[in-house]
Amino acid sequence: MKKHNFSAGPCILPQEVLKKASEAVINFNGLDLSLIEISHRSKDFVDVMEQARELALEHLGLQNKGYKALFLQGGASLEFLMVAFNLLEKKAAYLNTGTWSDKAIKEARLLGEVVEVASSKDANFNYIPKGYTISNDVDYFHCTSNNTIFGTQMHEFPETTVPLVCDMSSDIFSRVLDFSKFDLIYAGAQKNMGPAGTTLVVVKEEILGQVSRKIPSMLDYSVHISKDSMFNTPAVFPVYVSMLTLVWLKELGGVSTIEKINKQKAALLYSEIDRNPLFQGFVANKEDRSKMNATFNLTRAELKEPFDTILKTAGINGLNGHRSVGGYRASMYNALPVESVQVLVDTLKELERIA
Amino acid sequence: MKKHNFSAGPCILPQEVLKKASEAVINFNGLDLSLIEISHRSKDFVDVMEQARELALEHLGLQNKGYKALFLQGGASLEFLMVAFNLLEKKAAYLNTGTWSDKAIKEARLLGEVVEVASSKDANFNYIPKGYTISNDVDYFHCTSNNTIFGTQMHEFPETTVPLVCDMSSDIFSRVLDFSKFDLIYAGAQKNMGPAGTTLVVVKEEILGQVSRKIPSMLDYSVHISKDSMFNTPAVFPVYVSMLTLVWLKELGGVSTIEKINKQKAALLYSEIDRNPLFQGFVANKEDRSKMNATFNLTRAELKEPFDTILKTAGINGLNGHRSVGGYRASMYNALPVESVQVLVDTLKELERIA
Repeated sequence: MKKHNFSAGPCILPQEVLKKASEAVINFNGLDLSLIEISHRSKDFVDVMEQARELALEHLGLQNKGYKALFLQGGASLEFLMVAFNLLEKKAAYLNTGTWSDKAIKEARLLGEVVEVASSKDANFNYIPKGYTISNDVDYFHCTSNNTIFGTQMHEFPETTVPLVCDMSSDIFSRVLDFSKFDLIYAGAQKNMGPAGTTLVVVKEEILGQVSRKIPSMLDYSVHISKDSMFNTPAVFPVYVSMLTLVWLKELGGVSTIEKINKQKAALLYSEIDRNPLFQGFVANKEDRSKMNATFNLTRAELKEPFDTILKTAGINGLNGHRSVGGYRASMYNALPVESVQVLVDTLKELERIA
Repeated sequence: MKKHNFSAGPCILPQEVLKKASEAVINFNGLDLSLIEISHRSKDFVDVMEQARELALEHLGLQNKGYKALFLQGGASLEFLMVAFNLLEKKAAYLNTGTWSDKAIKEARLLGEVVEVASSKDANFNYIPKGYTISNDVDYFHCTSNNTIFGTQMHEFPETTVPLVCDMSSDIFSRVLDFSKFDLIYAGAQKNMGPAGTTLVVVKEEILGQVSRKIPSMLDYSVHISKDSMFNTPAVFPVYVSMLTLVWLKELGGVSTIEKINKQKAALLYSEIDRNPLFQGFVANKEDRSKMNATFNLTRAELKEPFDTILKTAGINGLNGHRSVGGYRASMYNALPVESVQVLVDTLKELERIA
């Protein structure tokens, strides 16, 4: 049975990527060896790593602009710490737009003063704060571009003179931005890039080396840069599958093409949520809605059972909302086809018909 | 062509494990979804993680003895740091038997005093120091059980009253030891356990919580224990393949069975190295030789080219020695069949015949 995978992450990846990845586990590059049993120092794997790093910069339009791309381990959660270790000398400014921002703030506080410039915590993060001020005396400003749990997304970024750091875990490679405005971007792979187990870090080299503390090797971006992202054995399979996904995206036409498709998918679903009296979006201001994760609820709680049955029959997977929001969450990452969103929209209509 | 994979890591894995892993990338557990696109909080994956953790303890004979098993990210290199963050209050004792011990010492020094109880650095680590003393006033003693690069292995461990911490990255699950003597064992997956990208940590809970520093969440073993090794998204594929390999080992008869096979493989190769006048082992004392990694060199340098040709013809992969030792290194991890060692031994004999 064909499944429609709306999982929030790990999540859907392109079918052709999965096919190639599956084959490489048996026989990689015609070597008669598995991808996962060859040395990470072999030319075959070094090429994979180099290609992944190049493609990441290329998709962001950051080639030859002083940026380096790294594929590290530990997810965004380790980046919360690494960002502070590498950049926080005295004081940093953070925008709090959800659970992940909150966790980033908590880790940074171990290493210095954190100013929360604004927060939507009071309203269970159902909007993106605006109109805040970022002082010029902070070491950097940190924000989360898309909030998977709450379904909000930053559609504008503040102008600031301090380094701009952004956790783009759940919307990287999904839309065109002027990425050169950012000094450090990080993203766990398991949304738009690949399987869980690797984290992309794109950093403008000139912002490094400014803190006075001794940084442990594994937490030091400069160490990873000096070793071409191979300071220690990388997560070979996740990096390989990420590379395949970045190739897939390039062949599709790149970020500008996928952005159009993502807009189409989001419009399709949100217009049905807004039209259908049985559903209500979670996000307070429509302008803050995420094109990656649409959060919504039933207006009549007693319809949960019939709706869940319709979803199951339609082959829809991963639509449960996060426990801190409840209801439903449809994650529409890059690899999710428009057809799957249409199937979901049809289930909303179907519920209206039978209710 | 059949390859004989002597790679030092990432390295050979059981063929049936690779087959199952390849299938799961397309369709996992009959879900019509890939292993790498389902939620890590789904029952199907939570079961994988639980089984991997249970099997790790079972193979080490550490079930119900106050130990917890974790599958983390970052490799042994991140453990160098985590061990010190979690255990080093004032002073720790380290045995220096190679490059990896050396790196572990370097990271620990950022957090406290490190006493190097002994070192074989003076002789390019070609032996395992013995007869050293571990003071009772240190927070823990750290050693590396097997030194991949140099081909030495600890066959005895010191009796000590302080917590015993061991990096077993390259020989875990290869031999029977009284593992209850150890308080913390860690191992990067990519030798005897699975693909690169996950690290097994087995820790006796009672040794935690003794240091006064604030530990960042991702570096805190207690945090990972409290979340059943799912504090953040784990490296799904590497954990799954590790679980499959631990099942394979159990079905084979467990660690005691594989130990017999490993002894047989090592005896086969070392006896030929010792017999054949064209080869010489790197390790100074035979008693310190590793059963996982045999390091050796040609006694006549001019035979390198013909020997390399013989190796290539025989389908032997990954035999180059590490740059800090040179020569050759045959890694004979659990999944390497005796037949592959026989093929290698035959190439040594073949060189003698034509030289």
